[in-house]
Amino acid sequence: MRESRQPARPDLSHEIEVVPPFFDIDSMDIVWHGHYVKYLELARCALLEKFDYGYTRMRESGYAWPVVDLRLKYVRPATFNQPLAVRAEIVEWENRLKFEYVIRDKATGGKVHTAMSIQVAVDMATREMQYVCPRVLWERLGVAP
Amino acid sequence: MRESRQPARPDLSHEIEVVPPFFDIDSMDIVWHGHYVKYLELARCALLEKFDYGYTRMRESGYAWPVVDLRLKYVRPATFNQPLAVRAEIVEWENRLKFEYVIRDKATGGKVHTAMSIQVAVDMATREMQYVCPRVLWERLGVAP
Amino acid sequence: MRESRQPARPDLSHEIEVVPPFFDIDSMDIVWHGHYVKYLELARCALLEKFDYGYTRMRESGYAWPVVDLRLKYVRPATFNQPLAVRAEIVEWENRLKFEYVIRDKATGGKVHTAMSIQVAVDMATREMQYVCPRVLWERLGVAP
Amino acid sequence: MRESRQPARPDLSHEIEVVPPFFDIDSMDIVWHGHYVKYLELARCALLEKFDYGYTRMRESGYAWPVVDLRLKYVRPATFNQPLAVRAEIVEWENRLKFEYVIRDKATGGKVHTAMSIQVAVDMATREMQYVCPRVLWERLGVAP
Repeated sequence: MRESRQPARPDLSHEIEVVPPFFDIDSMDIVWHGHYVKYLELARCALLEKFDYGYTRMRESGYAWPVVDLRLKYVRPATFNQPLAVRAEIVEWENRLKFEYVIRDKATGGKVHTAMSIQVAVDMATREMQYVCPRVLWERLGVAP
Repeated sequence: MRESRQPARPDLSHEIEVVPPFFDIDSMDIVWHGHYVKYLELARCALLEKFDYGYTRMRESGYAWPVVDLRLKYVRPATFNQPLAVRAEIVEWENRLKFEYVIRDKATGGKVHTAMSIQVAVDMATREMQYVCPRVLWERLGVAP
Repeated sequence: MRESRQPARPDLSHEIEVVPPFFDIDSMDIVWHGHYVKYLELARCALLEKFDYGYTRMRESGYAWPVVDLRLKYVRPATFNQPLAVRAEIVEWENRLKFEYVIRDKATGGKVHTAMSIQVAVDMATREMQYVCPRVLWERLGVAP
Repeated sequence: MRESRQPARPDLSHEIEVVPPFFDIDSMDIVWHGHYVKYLELARCALLEKFDYGYTRMRESGYAWPVVDLRLKYVRPATFNQPLAVRAEIVEWENRLKFEYVIRDKATGGKVHTAMSIQVAVDMATREMQYVCPRVLWERLGVAP
């Protein structure tokens, strides 16, 4: 069958735990909404490190990957010391690098937050934005464009 | 004519200046993307203060207004000490409070960032989300629902 | 001998790992000096949790413990993704709660940072600062005043 | 008299206003203690800009000035939207750059916070710490070593 000859698509997801620290809690006793951007970045960076394409490797490859689009949906407030599972997954890699995220309460599995981010490659030498992702990304992720 | 008898819709916008401090600059020498959430909040809070409905008044009115949706578009990177004009405008107030934002370079007027946020009212006594904005919001803004 | 009858003083120290995230790195490619206050708080909170006197328990006990004095010495810069061992130890508990901290590079053991903090108890009902630490602290830590 | 012939020592102080934003307020309804490091940096940077030796000029001069020592005393908690006067003054410039800071409530003049910081010059080419401040600092400040 055709499918059996195709290389299996790798698992492009990763999950980390985040426990909101005291300094992320606002005067309503919940995580201030801006801090979720940090939790997402922690999961995204951990995923990219897993594929040996973290920030240090990105630089070495000659590309910066600025975030150009970010959408955040707050389903339920998170509180101090509440263990959260932050899951990131790469869902596009051809022309831009798109991640989707789900944050859940670790104990109940209840959804706390969803998000997506889009990054584009910028050639660090010419400062030009790339309209197709560079080959190094596909090689590291083990995907075909 | 009918329109002439209607009260003029108030200007529901406000602009502040933000100058990115050193501690907001990342190792790519640009403002880290998560810090924009702070700049937006500064403009939103200043606008609401202008209408005497800042955080302190919100609490007094018995409602919290958590952000439930946030979208950020990064048009051009901002750098250290670059004066930015952050403009916020209320574009919905009936069932939810929706803001749109534009951040521009103060010197050139060039667009740096656009964003939108949605907040909903939560009754602080019952913890129930309100599907219609409370009257106090409309009174402060000088708008009809 | 007298010492053998005395209860052994408990180990009032705790060590955590902190790996500086991208958003803590400044444009000099090192951890911005203000972020160390977060790393210290993470270790202090983890230590207090170990003795069942974390922030939640503090509140329940009727006392807030604001930091009133903080000293930070920067021995060597820390960088992105560098695993750090952050060690906190309680060194005073009679009239005030004093912590000392050492941050080391996990790989080499080289000293990166030292610090100390002083907190005092404030009765949350009367808002009065306490000049002697409340009994609840000693009970949780297992120490005599 | 001798003193009259000496050049007047320049005023090496500067004061800025800081209004704590919502995202700096913790769940005790006060400014989280770590955020003061930002307020101090804002005042220090503004002072150095006044003498045309801000971060950009520092880099151009070939020196980085990392903070190596920081002491913070919390006199009284600051709250949301409370206008604060943050005053910084250079008190040493021979071998190291030392600032002293006082933060006061703008309305009452009541002391909220005091601090001091020490920076040393590092030659960015050789990465060597300088045990005497570079001449460029004295020239900008208009002081003699």
